[in-house]
Amino acid sequence: MKKLVAEFIGTLWLVLGGCGSAVLAAAYPELGIGFVGVAMAFGLTVLTMAYAIGHISGCHLNPAVSIGLWIGGRFDKRELLPYMVAQVLGGIAGAGILYLIASGKAGFEIGGFAANGYGEHSPDGYNMISALITEVVMTFMFLIIILGATHSKAPKGFGGLAIGLGLTLIHLISIPVTNTSVNPARSTSQALFVGDWAMDQLWLFWVAPIVGAMLAGLVYKYISPEKSA
Amino acid sequence: MKKLVAEFIGTLWLVLGGCGSAVLAAAYPELGIGFVGVAMAFGLTVLTMAYAIGHISGCHLNPAVSIGLWIGGRFDKRELLPYMVAQVLGGIAGAGILYLIASGKAGFEIGGFAANGYGEHSPDGYNMISALITEVVMTFMFLIIILGATHSKAPKGFGGLAIGLGLTLIHLISIPVTNTSVNPARSTSQALFVGDWAMDQLWLFWVAPIVGAMLAGLVYKYISPEKSA
Amino acid sequence: MKKLVAEFIGTLWLVLGGCGSAVLAAAYPELGIGFVGVAMAFGLTVLTMAYAIGHISGCHLNPAVSIGLWIGGRFDKRELLPYMVAQVLGGIAGAGILYLIASGKAGFEIGGFAANGYGEHSPDGYNMISALITEVVMTFMFLIIILGATHSKAPKGFGGLAIGLGLTLIHLISIPVTNTSVNPARSTSQALFVGDWAMDQLWLFWVAPIVGAMLAGLVYKYISPEKSA
Amino acid sequence: MKKLVAEFIGTLWLVLGGCGSAVLAAAYPELGIGFVGVAMAFGLTVLTMAYAIGHISGCHLNPAVSIGLWIGGRFDKRELLPYMVAQVLGGIAGAGILYLIASGKAGFEIGGFAANGYGEHSPDGYNMISALITEVVMTFMFLIIILGATHSKAPKGFGGLAIGLGLTLIHLISIPVTNTSVNPARSTSQALFVGDWAMDQLWLFWVAPIVGAMLAGLVYKYISPEKSA
Repeated sequence: MKKLVAEFIGTLWLVLGGCGSAVLAAAYPELGIGFVGVAMAFGLTVLTMAYAIGHISGCHLNPAVSIGLWIGGRFDKRELLPYMVAQVLGGIAGAGILYLIASGKAGFEIGGFAANGYGEHSPDGYNMISALITEVVMTFMFLIIILGATHSKAPKGFGGLAIGLGLTLIHLISIPVTNTSVNPARSTSQALFVGDWAMDQLWLFWVAPIVGAMLAGLVYKYISPEKSA
Repeated sequence: MKKLVAEFIGTLWLVLGGCGSAVLAAAYPELGIGFVGVAMAFGLTVLTMAYAIGHISGCHLNPAVSIGLWIGGRFDKRELLPYMVAQVLGGIAGAGILYLIASGKAGFEIGGFAANGYGEHSPDGYNMISALITEVVMTFMFLIIILGATHSKAPKGFGGLAIGLGLTLIHLISIPVTNTSVNPARSTSQALFVGDWAMDQLWLFWVAPIVGAMLAGLVYKYISPEKSA
Repeated sequence: MKKLVAEFIGTLWLVLGGCGSAVLAAAYPELGIGFVGVAMAFGLTVLTMAYAIGHISGCHLNPAVSIGLWIGGRFDKRELLPYMVAQVLGGIAGAGILYLIASGKAGFEIGGFAANGYGEHSPDGYNMISALITEVVMTFMFLIIILGATHSKAPKGFGGLAIGLGLTLIHLISIPVTNTSVNPARSTSQALFVGDWAMDQLWLFWVAPIVGAMLAGLVYKYISPEKSA
Repeated sequence: MKKLVAEFIGTLWLVLGGCGSAVLAAAYPELGIGFVGVAMAFGLTVLTMAYAIGHISGCHLNPAVSIGLWIGGRFDKRELLPYMVAQVLGGIAGAGILYLIASGKAGFEIGGFAANGYGEHSPDGYNMISALITEVVMTFMFLIIILGATHSKAPKGFGGLAIGLGLTLIHLISIPVTNTSVNPARSTSQALFVGDWAMDQLWLFWVAPIVGAMLAGLVYKYISPEKSA
């Protein structure tokens, strides 16, 4: 249960911090943080939680990560479903807090919130195929980083740094394509508040990250040194 | 006494560095550092001091942090008041040095300095409820990061990194809402120089961070592994 | 073979992440990541791979790095050619994925992709001599960082951090001059898609990085403490 | 002698990387790195060298640092002069390489290069008093960070990170005031190429950093735990 509370709080933070920076601060006139700031924010939610709750729950914060770790032989199948539920609920709670804060400004409209999308809902107009490739490949590489940096032969303690900054990197590349998901819980949390097109396109942000994560679990098993942690 | 001098210097640095970057460099034409730079600066004041004086005083630099650590069972009640006094005095000293530097430019006016505010004094016009929620939740998460990353089961040495970058993250999210406090000493230091509305609104930047920090102390006790440092 | 797969994936990531951030996100209106974001992205590809695959292949991702490590006495001559082939193929694969993603936007034209160039193809119009000096010196310093930070007397585990952020630094300095190479595999991957002038100028981005890397291998041997790792 | 070569190369890198990013990349239209990028670049020159040559020479790269470490009881008086000579020569070499690169662009004029200044040569018009306070206080805090983060009770290995990012922080605050020195070798290297007013004002960028560093050496002795490294 402690693990699930930790995953709930961590995913809440990922959504509140990452999506929150996008909604509240990205486009502030002149001084706004832009995509660089949003990329930093998403990465730092994971980096901070990795050191804060990594020793409690492993700090997955993401159903695709839990699935990839299971395929990679690092996570027990029996914990998969409870983790995923805690992550999705945490993400929704983070989105709810963000909604409360954001709506306290005159003239607030939810617009696209920080939902993920493709086609006409891609920030820069990329089609569904680009979105699929992007989300599969980015999640694949995210899991390669996670599986590698937490391997028993990797330097101790640096995993949270590499993984958090890896998520920053993924956002630096792909915000214009899909607004960057690689995390079904994050996408679901925003789509529930936006409804409409965001719910219609949500399938892609479950399917692609999970496919990418599973592929990474298989590939990393092949390239990893014998003993794993 | 060495501890109190360290807290004084550290909080001086937090205010001079964080608020200083905002006042001196954020809005410089074309090349200014914007909110991303200010967020980096606040976080780096804590990161640098964590490694420089963490082994002397624990590097709290913030009355809400000292209170949260006390509730979380990590800090002795008898040291609480002296620490808080040293932090507030250090913050005021930092603000004084900043005032001296900033006023050495023709046409200088103090304006809002780097004071925190809500309603018409929120950088982007957020109301008091948004400000309250923001400051409670951000300080809550800041203390979760601090309590977690300095726990005996967390990787050794990385605490200062996670905590400093956590403060950067908090600023990336919330500068537009309240100019980001999560630290009553920082808020007080600026309000004293601005007076007027900044003093009138200062209560919120004591109450909300302390409430958030106390809640985190209680929650972390529940989710943390048995042994704590 | 595991090593070569690791180098392939890592160099794929360097090109997809670094060049991808430049092509997809640098010039997005208002919110784009600019050269700061591109510099961060290139560095983070190396930082993340250093922790993910460093314990498998050493994480060179760059023919000039492999050559510099060989001259510096850290890498076996017999592995040199296979590593370089894997790196070039990985880079091309990364460029291919990037092309697939980027072309999924109405009105896409490849333009200069993220190719390196000098003279009229230097981003800011620097001539061939400036480009040569820049690429030799930047790669020289990159190898000094690599040889130093992975030396047995350097702090354990921090190598990936210093090397990755070193590549970020190199980009912060030199994108305007040559679009920054210091890596023949990265340059080749882009030139193949752009053809024309990019192929004509590609020689410089093999010669200069390799010369710089070899010089660093010799110099570091002289200044390094007796025992090397 | 190896130590002096290391200091020469390191200070060359500090000037080429820090001043180079300012001269070549800060003001590039639309995509330029601005003061945030320059601040990152200066810090990363020190961070990268700390891990690359810290185990050879201690990586001072700055006469004020060498003097502060001597006052703080960490550095042998007999090495002071040779270190300072190597640092100044390295800085000049870095400025020379930068000049060669920068002048390879049609219409190049040296202008202020990346020289430090006050009054009408302060980037944002701050007077001499502001400049003096800024340089004394910033160097004071830089040395507090250095003395603290390399103390035997501080976490092992993190010193280079804290010190490098501390220099980034110092630049985030103070570029608008003096273009940020805290390093007489860096200032001298630029003033020699600019001549004129930059030479006239150079005294401040020797006096103020050295005063700040000496004060820090004295203060840190008082607040530090008994045993020092």
